[in-house]
Amino acid sequence: MLNFNFQNPTKINFGEGQIKVISKEIPLDAKVLLVYGGGSIKGNGVYKQVIDALSEHTFFEFSGIEPNPTYDTLMKAQEIIKAENIDYLLAVGGGSVVDGAKFIAAAALYEGDDAWDILAKQQAVTKALPIGAVLTLPATGSESNGNSVVTRDGNKLPFSSPLVRPLFAVLDPSVTLSLSDRQISNGVVDAFIHTIEQYLTYSVNGKVQDRFSEGLLQTLIEEGPKALAPATKENLEVRANIMWSATMALNGLIGAGVPQDWSTHMIGHELTGAFGIDHARTLSIVLPAVMKVRKEQKREKLLQYATRVWQITEGDDNARIDKAIRLTEEFFEAMQVPTRLSDVNLGSNDIDLLINRLEQHGMTALGEKSDITLAISREILTKAL
Amino acid sequence: MLNFNFQNPTKINFGEGQIKVISKEIPLDAKVLLVYGGGSIKGNGVYKQVIDALSEHTFFEFSGIEPNPTYDTLMKAQEIIKAENIDYLLAVGGGSVVDGAKFIAAAALYEGDDAWDILAKQQAVTKALPIGAVLTLPATGSESNGNSVVTRDGNKLPFSSPLVRPLFAVLDPSVTLSLSDRQISNGVVDAFIHTIEQYLTYSVNGKVQDRFSEGLLQTLIEEGPKALAPATKENLEVRANIMWSATMALNGLIGAGVPQDWSTHMIGHELTGAFGIDHARTLSIVLPAVMKVRKEQKREKLLQYATRVWQITEGDDNARIDKAIRLTEEFFEAMQVPTRLSDVNLGSNDIDLLINRLEQHGMTALGEKSDITLAISREILTKAL
Repeated sequence: MLNFNFQNPTKINFGEGQIKVISKEIPLDAKVLLVYGGGSIKGNGVYKQVIDALSEHTFFEFSGIEPNPTYDTLMKAQEIIKAENIDYLLAVGGGSVVDGAKFIAAAALYEGDDAWDILAKQQAVTKALPIGAVLTLPATGSESNGNSVVTRDGNKLPFSSPLVRPLFAVLDPSVTLSLSDRQISNGVVDAFIHTIEQYLTYSVNGKVQDRFSEGLLQTLIEEGPKALAPATKENLEVRANIMWSATMALNGLIGAGVPQDWSTHMIGHELTGAFGIDHARTLSIVLPAVMKVRKEQKREKLLQYATRVWQITEGDDNARIDKAIRLTEEFFEAMQVPTRLSDVNLGSNDIDLLINRLEQHGMTALGEKSDITLAISREILTKAL
Repeated sequence: MLNFNFQNPTKINFGEGQIKVISKEIPLDAKVLLVYGGGSIKGNGVYKQVIDALSEHTFFEFSGIEPNPTYDTLMKAQEIIKAENIDYLLAVGGGSVVDGAKFIAAAALYEGDDAWDILAKQQAVTKALPIGAVLTLPATGSESNGNSVVTRDGNKLPFSSPLVRPLFAVLDPSVTLSLSDRQISNGVVDAFIHTIEQYLTYSVNGKVQDRFSEGLLQTLIEEGPKALAPATKENLEVRANIMWSATMALNGLIGAGVPQDWSTHMIGHELTGAFGIDHARTLSIVLPAVMKVRKEQKREKLLQYATRVWQITEGDDNARIDKAIRLTEEFFEAMQVPTRLSDVNLGSNDIDLLINRLEQHGMTALGEKSDITLAISREILTKAL
């Protein structure tokens, strides 16, 4: 196990009916900015529950945060923050809204000349408005971590700070019943791949981390398809298990003390940036190709994955690894997401652009050993055709 | 899954050489009281590392906290706290020292007439001194939870408050190399039973919690005996996996959203209080009897435990449950702890005293459904003869 420091102070309020706790989680004297997306929370009753819970608070609203939130949209929130002396952000939505709130929170108190530098120059965040989150889409783990990704001119740029980690998060699985199949699919696949990226590297004998990761993967494999099947999709236990898995997949715990490989995410970001493909659907295309191209480097962990997650016991090492990769693809297919570039109408002619973008963004040494060069990323994308 | 609230802000600093971080974790202007036990930290180098790390801090020392820390000892610390205006406690030791520091921290700022009421009358803790912990014995999870047990006149009394949860904990597995076999055994068994008590109840379909618990149990079963075997006992990876398992076993995570059954602990406390038996060794005596007596009530989870933790697939339900209980006892035997009252020279004549103590302490409705009456506790103790 590698040395690590781990801290996650976000208070989790989990379960049906928990939205009402925001009335106590947010100080009564706070001036709150309610931040949300395109308005789906008005159709599914979440908005009303939030407004009811805030009946004794002073609050304002900022809506319109889009999937893959853009810098331009987020900077518009600064006007109301200044005009109304906002001192608390309440993000109500999925990972994009929470990510967006994080940038708004950091930009509001940024002391440099231009908040864009937080993203473009990775300037450290030294202050941020406090954030609470009501999660409506289990996927990114953003509700209890300090990570955020913001898009500008087709470029997805991440930043991270413990200061933008939500102080509390409400996870009510019943809220997810109004999600579309596509949103559920994307969320389950995103959480699955977050877990894989902290697991499928090389062994450091971190048994707790490995068992926890395998438990999350198995839960998502079992519960994900149930959330799409007519007979089980309304089952609140299915939704609860998916929701808690997605949070645990990226709250820092399973990645503490083990190597990590975020190459699938980094390559996937370019697919979203260049072609507008849903984040999770870029990951389901890239991951199987990463597994195939990095089979030798990840051999030990791929075998462990085959045995412990998929219970594959027959065949030689290569056969077991190949079967585990095939079952991973079949899981993605069951979740109705693409597994090939051709599934989203991209071909070999599009690879140059993606490689150029990776280079432009400094993504020239990816993977758990920083040895995935641009040439290997090209190989991965070619394998994904 | 049950609704839950979960928050654990303790910062974990894990790995060899991490003791030095206390120089930065504790504010430089703090007046620190270094709290420890019988002085073993002076023999194994931990004391020197701590002193070196505190070279720029103002600190005082309070030693002599015993296993099962007593109220009388802990109250003696109040003198130096008042005399020197101590405003930060650094606990260096195992669960007893950390538990003791928690009571010292709460008593120091207690506003009622008598700090004993925190234990005897379960008076709420409203303020406490901040605590940091350097853990030397992985077992209780006290380094990242708000629980404490204090003994007075042979009575073990618990209290709990988020205000006494350590702000940070240092977990350096190399520190555990100087522990005796008995200390290691006790620690592994304690952590194992903490996990069992949050797992072996009835199913609420909390898949993440169940997979995490099973992962911890499997890790302790695999690694515990290695920490006693001459060929592997010096292996730092073994120690690291045990140490991280013990913390995760009782930091609140695996118990969030699932029923819990602390009957083994409550009955075990009376064995320690009345006869001075090591805490973990009371648990290894009581747990198998709880499993046997509560077989029907815990049937579903016992079968799950047999399958997922012990990989028992043959035989009918009863046979698989019996085998899982037998393997649990064999694991305890491999860890060199007793599994019967007769192993510690107690017999049927001693049961009345234990039942009287349980009654006196209000432990008349134990278990995940509060249906373990005194009569059933008597049955459990009789089964443990």
